[in-house]
Order: sequence, then structure tokens, then C-alpha cells
Amino acid sequence: MKVSISPRGSMEQLSQLEVSRLQLRVHSELYQLYRRCSLAVLCAGVESDNDLDLFSAHQDFDINVLQRPRGVKLELTNPPAKAFVDDQIISGTQEHLFAVLRDIIYIANKYDTLKNREAKINEHITNMVFDILRNARMLEKLKGPNIIVCWGGHSINQTEYMYTKEVGYQLGLRALDICTGCGPGAMKGPMKGATIGHAKQRIKSARYIGLTEPSIIAAEPPNQIVNELLIMPDIEKRLEAFVRLGHGIIIFAGGAGTAEELLYLLGILLHPDNAENPIPVVLTGPKESAAYFDEIDKFIEQTLGHDAQQKYQIIIDDPQKVARIMSNAMEDVKHYRRTIGDSYKFAWALKIEPEFQLPFIPTHEAVKKLKLSFDMEKADLAANLRRAFSAIVAGNVKGDTIKLIKSQGPFEINGDPKLMALMDTLLSAFVKQQRMKLPGSQYIPCYKVLN
Amino acid sequence: MKVSISPRGSMEQLSQLEVSRLQLRVHSELYQLYRRCSLAVLCAGVESDNDLDLFSAHQDFDINVLQRPRGVKLELTNPPAKAFVDDQIISGTQEHLFAVLRDIIYIANKYDTLKNREAKINEHITNMVFDILRNARMLEKLKGPNIIVCWGGHSINQTEYMYTKEVGYQLGLRALDICTGCGPGAMKGPMKGATIGHAKQRIKSARYIGLTEPSIIAAEPPNQIVNELLIMPDIEKRLEAFVRLGHGIIIFAGGAGTAEELLYLLGILLHPDNAENPIPVVLTGPKESAAYFDEIDKFIEQTLGHDAQQKYQIIIDDPQKVARIMSNAMEDVKHYRRTIGDSYKFAWALKIEPEFQLPFIPTHEAVKKLKLSFDMEKADLAANLRRAFSAIVAGNVKGDTIKLIKSQGPFEINGDPKLMALMDTLLSAFVKQQRMKLPGSQYIPCYKVLN
Amino acid sequence: MKVSISPRGSMEQLSQLEVSRLQLRVHSELYQLYRRCSLAVLCAGVESDNDLDLFSAHQDFDINVLQRPRGVKLELTNPPAKAFVDDQIISGTQEHLFAVLRDIIYIANKYDTLKNREAKINEHITNMVFDILRNARMLEKLKGPNIIVCWGGHSINQTEYMYTKEVGYQLGLRALDICTGCGPGAMKGPMKGATIGHAKQRIKSARYIGLTEPSIIAAEPPNQIVNELLIMPDIEKRLEAFVRLGHGIIIFAGGAGTAEELLYLLGILLHPDNAENPIPVVLTGPKESAAYFDEIDKFIEQTLGHDAQQKYQIIIDDPQKVARIMSNAMEDVKHYRRTIGDSYKFAWALKIEPEFQLPFIPTHEAVKKLKLSFDMEKADLAANLRRAFSAIVAGNVKGDTIKLIKSQGPFEINGDPKLMALMDTLLSAFVKQQRMKLPGSQYIPCYKVLN
Amino acid sequence: MKVSISPRGSMEQLSQLEVSRLQLRVHSELYQLYRRCSLAVLCAGVESDNDLDLFSAHQDFDINVLQRPRGVKLELTNPPAKAFVDDQIISGTQEHLFAVLRDIIYIANKYDTLKNREAKINEHITNMVFDILRNARMLEKLKGPNIIVCWGGHSINQTEYMYTKEVGYQLGLRALDICTGCGPGAMKGPMKGATIGHAKQRIKSARYIGLTEPSIIAAEPPNQIVNELLIMPDIEKRLEAFVRLGHGIIIFAGGAGTAEELLYLLGILLHPDNAENPIPVVLTGPKESAAYFDEIDKFIEQTLGHDAQQKYQIIIDDPQKVARIMSNAMEDVKHYRRTIGDSYKFAWALKIEPEFQLPFIPTHEAVKKLKLSFDMEKADLAANLRRAFSAIVAGNVKGDTIKLIKSQGPFEINGDPKLMALMDTLLSAFVKQQRMKLPGSQYIPCYKVLN
Repeated sequence: MKVSISPRGSMEQLSQLEVSRLQLRVHSELYQLYRRCSLAVLCAGVESDNDLDLFSAHQDFDINVLQRPRGVKLELTNPPAKAFVDDQIISGTQEHLFAVLRDIIYIANKYDTLKNREAKINEHITNMVFDILRNARMLEKLKGPNIIVCWGGHSINQTEYMYTKEVGYQLGLRALDICTGCGPGAMKGPMKGATIGHAKQRIKSARYIGLTEPSIIAAEPPNQIVNELLIMPDIEKRLEAFVRLGHGIIIFAGGAGTAEELLYLLGILLHPDNAENPIPVVLTGPKESAAYFDEIDKFIEQTLGHDAQQKYQIIIDDPQKVARIMSNAMEDVKHYRRTIGDSYKFAWALKIEPEFQLPFIPTHEAVKKLKLSFDMEKADLAANLRRAFSAIVAGNVKGDTIKLIKSQGPFEINGDPKLMALMDTLLSAFVKQQRMKLPGSQYIPCYKVLN
Repeated sequence: MKVSISPRGSMEQLSQLEVSRLQLRVHSELYQLYRRCSLAVLCAGVESDNDLDLFSAHQDFDINVLQRPRGVKLELTNPPAKAFVDDQIISGTQEHLFAVLRDIIYIANKYDTLKNREAKINEHITNMVFDILRNARMLEKLKGPNIIVCWGGHSINQTEYMYTKEVGYQLGLRALDICTGCGPGAMKGPMKGATIGHAKQRIKSARYIGLTEPSIIAAEPPNQIVNELLIMPDIEKRLEAFVRLGHGIIIFAGGAGTAEELLYLLGILLHPDNAENPIPVVLTGPKESAAYFDEIDKFIEQTLGHDAQQKYQIIIDDPQKVARIMSNAMEDVKHYRRTIGDSYKFAWALKIEPEFQLPFIPTHEAVKKLKLSFDMEKADLAANLRRAFSAIVAGNVKGDTIKLIKSQGPFEINGDPKLMALMDTLLSAFVKQQRMKLPGSQYIPCYKVLN
Repeated sequence: MKVSISPRGSMEQLSQLEVSRLQLRVHSELYQLYRRCSLAVLCAGVESDNDLDLFSAHQDFDINVLQRPRGVKLELTNPPAKAFVDDQIISGTQEHLFAVLRDIIYIANKYDTLKNREAKINEHITNMVFDILRNARMLEKLKGPNIIVCWGGHSINQTEYMYTKEVGYQLGLRALDICTGCGPGAMKGPMKGATIGHAKQRIKSARYIGLTEPSIIAAEPPNQIVNELLIMPDIEKRLEAFVRLGHGIIIFAGGAGTAEELLYLLGILLHPDNAENPIPVVLTGPKESAAYFDEIDKFIEQTLGHDAQQKYQIIIDDPQKVARIMSNAMEDVKHYRRTIGDSYKFAWALKIEPEFQLPFIPTHEAVKKLKLSFDMEKADLAANLRRAFSAIVAGNVKGDTIKLIKSQGPFEINGDPKLMALMDTLLSAFVKQQRMKLPGSQYIPCYKVLN
Repeated sequence: MKVSISPRGSMEQLSQLEVSRLQLRVHSELYQLYRRCSLAVLCAGVESDNDLDLFSAHQDFDINVLQRPRGVKLELTNPPAKAFVDDQIISGTQEHLFAVLRDIIYIANKYDTLKNREAKINEHITNMVFDILRNARMLEKLKGPNIIVCWGGHSINQTEYMYTKEVGYQLGLRALDICTGCGPGAMKGPMKGATIGHAKQRIKSARYIGLTEPSIIAAEPPNQIVNELLIMPDIEKRLEAFVRLGHGIIIFAGGAGTAEELLYLLGILLHPDNAENPIPVVLTGPKESAAYFDEIDKFIEQTLGHDAQQKYQIIIDDPQKVARIMSNAMEDVKHYRRTIGDSYKFAWALKIEPEFQLPFIPTHEAVKKLKLSFDMEKADLAANLRRAFSAIVAGNVKGDTIKLIKSQGPFEINGDPKLMALMDTLLSAFVKQQRMKLPGSQYIPCYKVLN
């Protein structure tokens, strides 16, 4: 069964040369990546965090870029039925499919960097992040600071999920837009809640921004509400996009990925150049999750210290207060950006050091070599802790890394014994609370903390 | 605590003369009606079907129409806190408040009919229904036939509720808009479901139309999603608005009110002038509710006969099919209206006899005098059965009638013994299935079937 | 040849009752009025100021309001060919035709005042003016004060016409909208100029408002640029609409009609209640017209005195300055209205006495009885002078009055000899400068100044 | 006097890297080009076809691209006062300034081809033309075929100018958009006329597209109505943009430039692959210009033959008919493009051979070497005749070529004697009719026809 799909939302105007460049050899690595990401968006709504399962269920799926005189078309072979209504593709899915084309192939052709993720000049990476956001027309719509980034786990319990919805609802009531990593759990709840809040306030142009990356999209397919989907080339550029695009950050309970995000953020905010930056950061959850945030807070205190703790506040069981903090802080953000002459649309002035920008490829060797010790600069320690957690995320949900772990055993994380003890405690808690993987399967750690 | 509210959505341009006419004597009956309806929309989201409870909880609430040089303002005293976010009224509630002003006082001034509901010429009633819809700007937005009216009980079980959401979702995916009586249960579910469907199809101008009336609005406050609220002067004009505005009708499980709606509809569709009218009517529910529809179907068969049964189809446990039937039928509706030269926006050509238009005031005497017998014309029987069920609804949820029942005892319904037996069976089933009132209280029937 | 025209711009939603009320007996006076006004808008662009000519050229023209199930339609018999492009009516003309229907018949049905122009309560007239403007949806679009009323003659020379265009251009460059009496000459030039100014400033929603009245529309058909046409019931309500809708007033050279407008305006601005009103009034023209304004200024000085002169400024040959004064004054208007709580959209607070509101019917007797003397209150004198000039305008261009003059001879204007001498001088100058009628015919005065 | 200008219309989102690349060394050739083009748009409305005059009048003018954190800004030193209103730049001029930046520097950075106009692969040129149009967002707005390209002289007499306005008016009445080369004369008239037609038809999104090129923009500054300005890198890409973007072509009277355009068009339409292309081509003028078109027609007959004559029709003194032909042909264009699967927005399928795409630099040597003889293929002859006329245009109005002529004397055009006689006749007629340059100066030919 073959279906042909016209462009929607982007890619409507391509030159014949560009279309011909989009056509891929089926056996190329880029084609495989493209096919996987397309399949992921076609499977939106399916609850799974194992991309291998997803792919094995749709082995006969295929996608081709067709060159038509009037422009590009996509030809799908055996697409999942759920993406269609009465033989018509759902408009949202159609948009997502062309977002994948735009971000995977078009950007790959432009930068040719997906394969060669070698070191780049710092400034160029930021310009590339900007370019990708602009190419997706994400920088045009903003009226003033109002994008709240919501981070948190894909595997959270029902109480926590309902709490993220309530926070989203309160944000929506205050005309704030939502940006998440676009999977299930804490990435979906705030959007669902916000839609009701926005509807009650008669806001028709609300934005539900999903920032993902090729290796995570299949494990965390964009939920159904995302109306601006963007696939960044790698995890580091995705994190940079979050902090330059967003105007406030809320962190819900989560596992290794959430820890990665928090460490990335603190590493940047600890930079002296960013000392005055008034970006609001709130860690929040229902009262049942108070212990979780205690644990995180203690970990930060003992690793990055008191200064890092000053960068966020923890609010338990008060969605209204969380939303009010964000809403009020938007004025500070506006004032700050105006004062230093920075754009509301993209925080050019935020200083991000190369150690947070350069891609970290989680191989066994790279993980083992990570220096983790108390005698480092706090920002450097944050950077390396971030990398360690990043490797764990990859080992949990990314197909390639899962295979790597299968063949070579768990990553070995190594460092100052006291630091290792802290990490072990935190990670064990994540495992016990089922934050690493969706419930239903036994979690086998992809890492060993050596101490 | 006093708050002053500016107009939104309608009533933005009023002359000074008009504003002065809106000002009411506090002790007038119209003021009391206006105050109650305003309180009801401020309490949207509260789950209750007893308006007396609602009113006793907010006895210190007050509302005044203020004359300002620049136009009208509303002054609220002690409004429910839930209607506000950070001291700002929620836009949707603000719209609803001015819809109440528009429909209760403005229309009352124009027609002066709320108190004197005396008989009117047939044609004039239809023109008045049109005028009220137009005054609410509900006739401007339509592109083509796509309004699906969803009827059903406010008190339905969770399985049934989830089913109404799923049907709404499937309707939304097919770009169909929703119109209901704007309370909880089967009036809320389809709207909630449709919002997700509309969002996935990137439809930003979706309509969630709520048609209510002054004596029911407090018992069934408009749910939070309604973005076009209209308060018709009485139940008969509300029913007429449903069938002239809608292009398809879905009936979910419900109690006396739903029976009233079905009987009204069948009475009209049985009129020879409406024989060719292709309006799709579907009765539907989850498989657990199959017996309910069986019962209804049998009641119709034995009272109104086979011809009436031909006017609807019953579909069990297939939301997609329901939505597809509606979607496909829109073409027939379009074709039919074009053929006979009727408007898409208002079904002028639908023949409605005075017995379905003239208000029925449910007093003990009026109920007792209702002729209910097999030797009547089917349409006349439908009309009187409709009135009988209407009286029961009033006795269940409308403040005035509840008081009446308290003082004078239950209504007595009288007629052909076989017919009475059929009614008794049906009503008993409604009671047993808790369709008469929200669960939690013991239902004491407001009627006696004499036989 | 018959053509049927669908509604556009207004009247799209009418009830069947309303449509049936729009149908007129062909021999009624209202029908004749309606037919004449419709013919006038169909002849837009024709240069003529004699409606009798226009009507005699199209004696076989006819117009009927048709009742169609889907709403109203107009049927035209033998319409002027110029109103069509490839057998399609021009959209602007289509809009104007329905504006005529809306204002002549719909409003007549509502107020029933076109025939019985008997005295009304003051306040009610203002509310009616408001209602007619609102009914034409003219009060919805305004963002802030920016409507500049341009008055001046329909018969001006080429230099003066080019000057009005240049002023319009400068107003358009400053994002100001134009409102005129919608005939040729000084009523067309500012609009034409403004379109270029608006285009250069990329303003797409510019408004070109034409306010006319039934007895003048045929003599001064709406020019082609008017995109909001409104026909007020009589000259007094038209003048009130100008001053309550506009935020600044520019007066170009003109004849009796322009003098009428200036006297009306000064009469109102001299009222103590309006003393603080900052509405900017500028008299302006090219340097060749300097003498004209001198004459007017002297007339005002010697009749209404120095206080009246303070209400306007005269600017010769400086379109930029005129526009800059208007543009700057908008801030004052905003501030004043906000301070006193008045609306930007309709100047409710402007005090207009009944002598300026009640219709003046120019019969020989009424003109003769007008008291014109120096011992009156200035405002009363302004009112009566206004009436005298109004009569002359009617005698010049309005069909009915022209017939009256033909049968009974010129109006006789009577009063204080010195005042009469002043009037005679002014009127003689108008005649000599060909401001009374379009050039090409010999002007025969419709008045005699007795002294 | 320095003024800083923010982006409008395009270039609103630039990365810091891109802004830094926009900054030019003041002495570079590209900077000089950029400065000249910017000055030209700031002088819009000035009647002159000699760019050297323009530049000498504004020698102290300067423009700089500033890097601001929030994006790019332009700093103007001593800009012409006419571009400002009350110290605010006119929005249209602001848009044009950034169009220049976009097209001159941004595209130059992207293609680096402005200086090195060496041979390119055919297909790549077309893709580049597409890319430049898309980059200017000119391909997004089209609903269906409706762009009429109007060619003709910048120096035409008043009768001809009024005729172009009338044709534009008739096109506007038929909802057709206008595309010209954006100078005065036949390039301005149709736009001015169309604005009135569009206004009467209430079309708010009308497009007035101006396609120019760097060396001509100063001689023919964009007129004030152009709301989409595009500067193509060279004359050949500009011509290609005209024929791929437009859906119909009207040719008014003109001089060498108009002859160049007609020959280009016929050369392409004579290609066998384009035989079925239904693009309507009309040569038209007032009856006073009938002889002119006769002459052109004879020249085509005797050079390119009968087949070429079949590609156009000549219509004298009938603007309505011209517009009706265009309007009706839009259906054929639609049908043809749909049949062959071509885009409405860009005529990919139109075959254009390299000889019409590759830039021709008019040096004395290149002109002398042009083969002009009857024994060539018609299309080749058309190509070379086009080049000859192109050289004459350059010699007439382009600064660089004027200097060249001054130092080296007139171009020598050489070829088959009979052909040379035909050219001489045509060119002499152009000179006599003052079509080469604006009246007021004595025209000294920049060419010699050798025979």
C-alpha cells in the first residue's frame, strides 16, 4: 500500500535541484536515519520507549522523496494506519513528516555535519542552532518572552503526570507557551494542560514546541499536541536550542535525562558572564515527590555547591505558584534583554562554553575517560557529570547505544569515590522509582559506578 | 470585594440609551434571573446539577450593569474565585458573562417575552430564534454544513463518558464542529474529544457551541470549552435552535431530557414536509450501553411506530463509524439545501408545527391534562410525550419546579394504560441507571405514572 | 436586461420577516427614494451635480428586493453598464448597493422617521446617529483616534483639487484615515491622495469613509474610493455623524455647503461645554486661494466674532504642516477623551444643542422666517446662518428644492442689513468663483438677500 | 545627519555570522554597488533616467550595515529627505532598502556570482532564479495564475502613459496582479491604474511586483507603488524571472529595452518545446501609437518571420479587450500547467536555452562580434538581436557603459546589410519618437549600424 503526501507547513517551495538532492540512496546511513525518524512521527501516540520494538513492528515501512515538477512529494509504503483518517493523513502528522524531511535531509545537505560531528568553532555552533530554528520558522511568531521549557522524565507515575498537566494548565491560563522534548510523561502533560488553559483564555495561536533529536525521536515520538516540531542534529544542539529559545525553565521529576538537563543548565548559569541572567528555574512536583527533589537538591549541593543551588527554587505541590513565578519573571527577562540589547527570540548573549556545545559520543572509552572529581572547576564538573548522565540516557533508550551495551557490557563510570557514592545513590533511586524506563520491564542498568 | 469587567466578544458597542435600559431594579424578576445565570457561568467547571445548592453557596454574590461614557461595564461583588487568574478574569468566562447580558437583558428588552410567554404566531417564533442566533454572531462563521449537535445525559457513567469523548475526537478529526446543551456528561465529552481531533488537524477556528436556557443554565453550567454560548429564552426555542443550526444529530445515553430531545426531533421529522430532509440522526453508545438503546428503540417502535424508527440508526461501540456517517452526510445536507434553496446557516425550510414551538409550562394541571393516547396522530403524540418528559426534567433540575413539586407532590401523568406502562418501564430504567440525577443522592421521582 | 445581485458587506443575514419588510410598493415615496439612491451609487464616477439629469438618463432603471430562502437579493433592471466588469458587478458598487438598502429601508423600517421628521428628544437623536453608525459596523474597526474629516466644495478648480490630493497624500503618509461627504472635488481629492500615502506606508486597512444623505447622494455620487459608505437620514444627522465620528477636521475651499459645515462646527464648538475639546480644525488651500480664506475669516470675525476665529487656524499652501497638525493633535484628542472618559469611537461627550440637531426643511416660508441678527447669542446666530446656507445648497443641487425654486422663485433671506450685506458679499464671491455649481452652466441664484 | 533603520519585510532574522558577513569594506566594488542601489530606492519618485546625475547630487550619502545583538540595522548618512515623513522613514522605502540588502549582499554572499558572471550550467541558473524569488518570499502568496507582466518604455508620451494606466485599471478590475521592471512610464502606469481597479474590487492583497537589476535600478528607481521589490543579479536572470513568474505579458510602446524584451520572449516561445505554451502575449497602445506597433510587427515579420508573429497579437486602443484576453487566458495557463504537471508559481517547464541565460557583457568587442544574419536559426537570430538591443540600453542608461561609450565611441553593430537596414529604420524611429531617453535632452546615439 502506497500513499503520496504533499508538503504542509514547510518545504512547500523547493527548487528542482534541491528536490533531487533530497533523494537518498536507500542503503545510505542518512536514509536509514530519515526512515526511522519518519516512522517515529507516524507512530505518534504509541506508548513505547524502545525504538527497536517500534522498528521491528514496521519492517515493511518505506519512505521515498519524489521529484514532481510542482515540488517535492513523499511516498509512503505501508505506513501505520493510525496516522490516517478516512484515508487522509492527519494534518499534524503531515506537518511532522515534512519537519523531519526539513531537519534531517535538508539541514544535512546544508551542513553535512550529521555524520562528521567533529569539533567546530564555538560561535559557528550557535549560529547553526539559530539557523536551524529560523529555517523551521520558529523565530518569527514570538511577540514577547513567553516560552516556558518543561523538562522531566518520560516515565513518571500517574500522580506526577496529573501534576504536570495542572502546571501546564496554570501556564496556559497565563498565556505562556510550552516547549518540551516531545515525548510522553512530563513532556506531554504540560502541553495537554496548557491547551485547556489556552482555550479558556481564547488564545488561538498557542505554541506547543517540541525539540527532539534523531536518536531520541523514535524512543520518544512527538506527542499529538506538538504544533512546532524540530529535530536538532544532536543532543548538545538540542540543549542549546532549549536555553536560547526558552524564557523560563520548569523541571519535573525524571531520571537520567532530567539530571543531564539540570546539570547542563547549572553548568551554563554558573558561568560568570551569565551571573545576571534572570532566567527563572523551578523544580517542582506533587507532595508525593518531595523526597525526589530533596535528593536532587542534596546531590547538587554536594557536587556543585551552594552557588548552583541559588540558581533554582524548589516548589512542592503548588502549580499556581509555579506558573505565577514564570509569568512574573517574563517582565525581568524582557527588561534584562532590552538592557543588554539581546533579542527576545534567541538569547545570543547567553555564554555557552565549548565543553557544553561539542557533541559527546557515548562510547565505553569516552565514558571511562570522563574526569569526575571535586578538584575541578564547578562548571567543568557540571559538564562532565552532564556527559555521564547523557551516556546513561543513550544506553537506556537509543538503539545504537543499546546494541553497544549488549555487546560490550555496561559503561564504567569512574572518579572520586565520594562523588561516585553520590552518583550511585542518585541513580539507584532513579532505578527504584522506575524513572529509567517505562514500567512493565525489568530495568537492567547500562552502567556501573566504580568506586 | 468588587471587580469591574469590560465587554468582550459582544456588547462592545452600546448606545447610552441601551446601557441605561440594561440597568435593572434589583428586586425585579428579570434581575434575579440575570444574577442566577451570571453566577452559573462564573461557576463553570463545578460539578453539580442542583442550582439551589449553587445559589445558597454564593448568597453574597451580586452583579450590576454600570453605565460608563465609553460603554457598558459589569460590576461583580464577591464573584467565585475560580473565575479569576491572578486577579484577572478568565477570557472565556468574560465572554460568557457578556453572552448572558446579551441574551437575558438585551433580548428581553427587545422582545419583552421572557415574562409574557404567551402564544405567538408560528413564523414569528422562527424569526426570533434566527434573530437571537444572529445577534450572537453565530451565523457568520459557517463555511459549509459541519455542525454536529450532540445530545445525551448530564449524568452518565465513566464508560459512557469516555465513549462520548472518543466520538468527539473522531468528529474533530473530520473537521466537524460540536454543538451541545453545554452542561457536564454527554454535553462535555464530545467537545473535549473534539479539541484533540481539531488540534491534530490544525484547525484553529473550531466551534464549540453551547445552547442553553435560563432555567437550566444553573443546573448545567457551560463547560469550559464552549466558545460560543447562547441562552435561548425557553426550552422550545432552544430545541428549535438546535435543529435549525445543526447539520447532524448524535444522541448518547441520557435520561428524561434526552428522551425529550429525541421525541421532539422525531415529531418534526415525521412531518410530511420534512420527509426528504437528509439530516443524519445516530443513537450511539459503548457496548455496555447496548441495552439502553434497545429499550429506547422499543419505546419508539411501540409509541411512534416503524416510520419513526426509520429516522435514526443505532450504532453500538463504533465511534469511527458514527463520525464517518456524519462526515459523509454533510454532502447530502449541502446538496439538499442547495436543491431546495435553503440556507446552510439556518434551516428555514424545516417545518416545525406550533405544538413544538409554543412554550409548555410544567404545572401540575398542565401535566395532568396532557393527552397521551394511541389514537392520536403520531406527531401529536410525539409532541405530548415530549411535554411529559420536559416536565420531568424540570421537576428534576429546575429550581422553580423543584419547589412546586415539594409543595404539591409529584406530577401525575395520565393516559392510555398501555402507553403508561411503556413510559413507566422506560422511566424506571432511567432511575435505576442513575440517569435522572448525578450519583450521590437518592433520586425521588417528581412524577407518578397513573395507570 | 435583469441582473440579480447577492449581498456583500452587510445585510448578509436577514430573517425572512425582515426581507419581506424590505419589499416596497413601487409607488411609495420610500421606493422612489430607494431607487434614486441605488441609481446614484451605480453611477459612481459620473461627473455631474444635477440629479435630475442623472435620473432622466436612466428612466428605465428599476430595482427590486427579492425574497430568497437563503436571504435577500437585489434585482436590477437596466442598470448602468459602467457598474459591471465582464458582466460581474464591481465589488465596491455591490457593497454600496447594499449600504443603500441597509440605510434607506432597513433604518426606515426601524425608525420610521424618514417621512415623519418631527421633533425628537435631543438625546434620542444622538443615540440614533450612534445606532446607524454601529449598524454599518463603522465603530468596530478603530484602533485609536485617526479619522480626519475633509470638507470642501464639489466644484473647485484644478489647482485646488491638486492641493486637496496633496493634503490627502500627506495625511495618508501619517496613517490617518479620511472621511468626507463622498462627492467629487474636495471630497474625492483627499481620498485619492491618501491611497498613495497609505500604499507607501503599507497600510492595508485604510478607511475611506463617505457620509452622505438621500437628497444629496444623487447630486454627489460616492466616489470610487469610498470603502465605507453610509447614508444618514438627513443633513443634520449627517453633520452630527461627522463631528462625533471624526477626530480632526480640515476645510478646503467650497461654496454654500462648505459654509454650512463651518457654521455648524463653530456653533457647536462655541458651546461652553465644548470649550476644552481639543479637536483640530484647519482651513487650508493653495496660495491662489488665499483670498478665499481671507473672506471667510472676515465673515466669521464680523458675524461670530473673535472667539469663533480661535477655534480654527488657516494654513495656506503647506500640506505637510496641515497633516502634521492633525497627526500631532491625535495625541491631544486621545488624552482628552481618556481624561473625561469618552469613547474614541464616538464623541458622546460633545454637546450638541437641539437647534443643530432638529431637521430644517428649506421651504420659502421657513427661510424667510429665519431670524438673522447681531443681537442673538453667537451659537444661535451660527445655527440660523447654517440653516440659511443649507437652504441655498438644497436650492442648488437637490431635486425637490430645485423644483420648488422653479415654481415659487428664489428663497428670500432677510435680516439685519449689515449682516445681509456680509452674506451677499460672501455669496457673490462663491458665485463668481464658480463654487456653487460645476462649471459649464450659468449659475442662477436660488436665493435673494433682502436688505 | 545619521539615521538608523530597522529591518522590515525581510532580513528580520539574521544570525550574528550573517550580519558580520554583510559588513563590507567601503572601497569594495560590491559596497559601491550596494550604496548606489540603496540610494536609488531612497530617491524613488524622482524623475530621471541618468544615474550619474542622481549620484552626483548625493555624494555625501553613505550607508552602513550595523551589527546589533538583536539583529541587523542600517545606518544612513545624509539620506534624501524625501524618503522620510516627520523623521520617520516611509515603510515602503524601508522595505525596499532591506530588499536591496537581501538581494545585493545576501545573495552575493550566497552565490558569489555578481563579479564572476562566468558560464554556468543551464539548469543551475534556473534554480538560482527560483532561489532568489523564493528568498524574497515571492512564491508564497500566489493563489492561482494572475500575474501580468507589463513591459514598455520608461520614456513614453502622455497619451501612451494614460493608456497604460487605463490598461492597468482594467487588469485590476479583473483581479490581476502587475509585474514590471519598476521604473517610470510604462512600468508605472499599469500599477497606478491597477490600484484603482483593485480598490474598487476591494482587493487588499494586490501585488505590484518590481523586478530590476543593479545596473538599471538607479536609472529607473522603483516607483512608489511597488510592494514587492526584487533585484536580480543581471539582465538575463531578470528576464528569466519575468517569464517564469508571469502568467501573461503585455507590451506597451517603448525603445531599445522593450525591443530587447520582445526579442527575448519570441526567441523562447519559438523553441519547439514551448510550442504548446498558452502564455498570452499582447502588444498594445492608443490609436496614436498604431504606427509604432506596425513598425515593430514588420520588423519581426522580416527578421523572425511569420511563426514569430503568431506568438502575439496587436490590439490598438482597447484596454478592456486587452484585460479580457489576459483574464480569459488565465484559465488556459492553469489548465496547461496542470496538464503537464508544472507549478503555477514558477514555470519550470518553460525551456530556455543557454544563449538566453548566459550574461552578455556589452563591450565594444562583444557587440562588434555579434553575428546577425538571415541564415541563422530564428531562435539564434532572436538571441543575438536581443543582445544588440541590450547593448544599446546599456549605452543609454547604465553608468558604466555610458563611460565606456564616452571613451571609446559608439558600439558598432555589424551584419547582413538588409538586416542592418531594418535595424537602422527601427532605431531611428525610436530616436525620433524620443523613446531612447526622457525628453529634455538631445539624444546622442550610443551605437552605429554598419551597413
